[in-house]
Amino acid sequence: MLSYSKRVGALRSSEIRDLMKLATRPDMISFAGGMPNNDLFPVAQIDQIFDTLPDQLKKVACQYGPTPGHPPLLEALKEHLRGKGMPVDTNEILITTGSIQAINILTQAFVDPGDTIILENPSFIGSISIFKSYMANMVAIDMENDGIDISRLEYELNKPDIHPKMLYLIPNFQNPAGTIYSQYKRDAIFKMMAGKETILVEDDAYGDLYFNERVKPLTVPMKNSENGEFTICYTGSFSKILGPGLRLGWLLAPPEIYQKCEIIKQTMDSCSPNYTQVLATEFLNRGYLQPYLSFLREEYSERCNMMHKYLVNYMPEYVKWVVPEGGFYFWLHLPEDLDASEILTKSIEKGAVFVTGKTFDPYGVKNNRIRLAFSNMQKSEIEPGIKMIADAIRELKK
Amino acid sequence: MLSYSKRVGALRSSEIRDLMKLATRPDMISFAGGMPNNDLFPVAQIDQIFDTLPDQLKKVACQYGPTPGHPPLLEALKEHLRGKGMPVDTNEILITTGSIQAINILTQAFVDPGDTIILENPSFIGSISIFKSYMANMVAIDMENDGIDISRLEYELNKPDIHPKMLYLIPNFQNPAGTIYSQYKRDAIFKMMAGKETILVEDDAYGDLYFNERVKPLTVPMKNSENGEFTICYTGSFSKILGPGLRLGWLLAPPEIYQKCEIIKQTMDSCSPNYTQVLATEFLNRGYLQPYLSFLREEYSERCNMMHKYLVNYMPEYVKWVVPEGGFYFWLHLPEDLDASEILTKSIEKGAVFVTGKTFDPYGVKNNRIRLAFSNMQKSEIEPGIKMIADAIRELKK
Repeated sequence: MLSYSKRVGALRSSEIRDLMKLATRPDMISFAGGMPNNDLFPVAQIDQIFDTLPDQLKKVACQYGPTPGHPPLLEALKEHLRGKGMPVDTNEILITTGSIQAINILTQAFVDPGDTIILENPSFIGSISIFKSYMANMVAIDMENDGIDISRLEYELNKPDIHPKMLYLIPNFQNPAGTIYSQYKRDAIFKMMAGKETILVEDDAYGDLYFNERVKPLTVPMKNSENGEFTICYTGSFSKILGPGLRLGWLLAPPEIYQKCEIIKQTMDSCSPNYTQVLATEFLNRGYLQPYLSFLREEYSERCNMMHKYLVNYMPEYVKWVVPEGGFYFWLHLPEDLDASEILTKSIEKGAVFVTGKTFDPYGVKNNRIRLAFSNMQKSEIEPGIKMIADAIRELKK
Repeated sequence: MLSYSKRVGALRSSEIRDLMKLATRPDMISFAGGMPNNDLFPVAQIDQIFDTLPDQLKKVACQYGPTPGHPPLLEALKEHLRGKGMPVDTNEILITTGSIQAINILTQAFVDPGDTIILENPSFIGSISIFKSYMANMVAIDMENDGIDISRLEYELNKPDIHPKMLYLIPNFQNPAGTIYSQYKRDAIFKMMAGKETILVEDDAYGDLYFNERVKPLTVPMKNSENGEFTICYTGSFSKILGPGLRLGWLLAPPEIYQKCEIIKQTMDSCSPNYTQVLATEFLNRGYLQPYLSFLREEYSERCNMMHKYLVNYMPEYVKWVVPEGGFYFWLHLPEDLDASEILTKSIEKGAVFVTGKTFDPYGVKNNRIRLAFSNMQKSEIEPGIKMIADAIRELKK
């Protein structure tokens, strides 16, 4: 009897919910959640902020803020991004309720039902769900160890009569593949996008979380090199560098696009939470971010090394992976005859959960992949958890 | 060169931004902002909460939460709504990022481009913008002193071949009209909606802010009387009873609709800010809400009485209004030959701002109305501000 919209029909039912349930099962060693361990949050620093916050700012925190963002946060973030070489003077910043809202807003700004979005395969489940909700035509291009398959990308970009509206990429420590784009591929993408109307949406939630100085220069956003030959909209997040519970992200876009995005954001939630914007402002202005980032890099690097060691120890030789140099994820490649959903079922029996490959396939098919996050569990759980998953794989391999 | 979506083209450019700018001009006496005065926020209570919050909860506050909401907040809110007689056992609660997100989600769930939404004229600018962003066909029906014109509503509901997807109403202390629906009109709407597929979206941001016990029984949500003959989705908010800066609202909907809404919310921001959800949970569980509501009712009632007194004192006799019995707003009716935009220009010269009538007209036309909010300014500013606006009106009346 209820007559839902066509857009609702386009959404897969409950994938993210199922993912969140997996990620937070208390009885399990969880490799599922792309989230920090609770003990890593800067609770002491936030206590310091709150204890010394003037009453006047506590009141502002309770009030509506301007749609673009709490002005002191915009200023502080602008300085932070300027320090990273980003073009903050020729672009505008919009504070969003997580970077997922930034991606949603950009999609609403550009994509009508049936329009084409080119994205990586695998890609971020949140963005895949957004693109489905706008009834986009997703064209997914395989990831290689140093980024998207660029010959395929060139082919898709130049197909006659398609005119993709958006190219959505996660160049740094991709979720779920864990890879970082080579300079060669970044340059190639610049060349093939020149003169195109296709917007590049650069999702950079993990770029600050590199594990070594060698890889750091590669994390420079593509946005920093914009040259006017095509349009780049950049999205960033406080979720991985402060806390996802604050629900704060941002987008950096040329003024004309920014203005459309601001109007769209008004219809979504009027403004992002001023309460957490005030806290984030202080976190930046009091100089807490850089030391906290150093702490996180060391912590995640240690977790990554531990996981690599146990993968080498326990996984059968036919399981392959690239060691990530930043971010949260290992992406295991399994032989074609193995199905990650079956492995998951068996692994859950043993006491470990992860996310299956097809979750991240925009076409929902390819399932001989496994995503393992090392960000969330206790470190002491990594070894027994990896052993459980390795045993599950062995038991299923014919 | 940029090729935006059709939806962007459907949005009015910057009305809410202009409204916010008006509302927050520091050099002005502002009757524009539908927001509490900063000094009214329960800062001391939030300090108490923060000072005694266990570290474990401070960590949870920084983390992603489940999409439906922080489970203890869902429990606390369920008990609060149960206490108000709401059908919380046959419906599900979804925590949203302000009730504007709840309205946006419901619109996405039901409305395709061109679908009809029936709403009040005037109506909430936020909802008008949402409906435009979904390219809905808005049918706006005039408000009378005790609610929407029900004969017109019946006519529009029963037009052949239209099948409105949604009826959007603000029965309690409407924004901007300030009116409350009579029991007669509530009953009439129940009768005429029976058997229809049209969803009633009941926006109840102001129902708790009644000024006298006489009107209190009328504030009972229509949702409480649902009888299975048509579907009601109810939206509520912490913005007016705790603080808009927390960005917390909710919707209460039948399970099937709730499930669609949860999936849509995932694509919008994954979850509402866990940080402020933890604070709101404590605010409810520590028993702070009821005393704070009593305080707010007294404060807003006093402000309303003051404004009424000065309106009587200073306004020309051809300016008419109904004295609100709750909420934030006076809605002035001016003679047909007066234009609120011209009055606003002159009034700003004198030092007072308000919002013009056409802002709240879904058709963007009718402009011999003025919305005056008494929630936001210092009380001492009410008299001089009203005098300025009255003078502006007199100067423009031929």
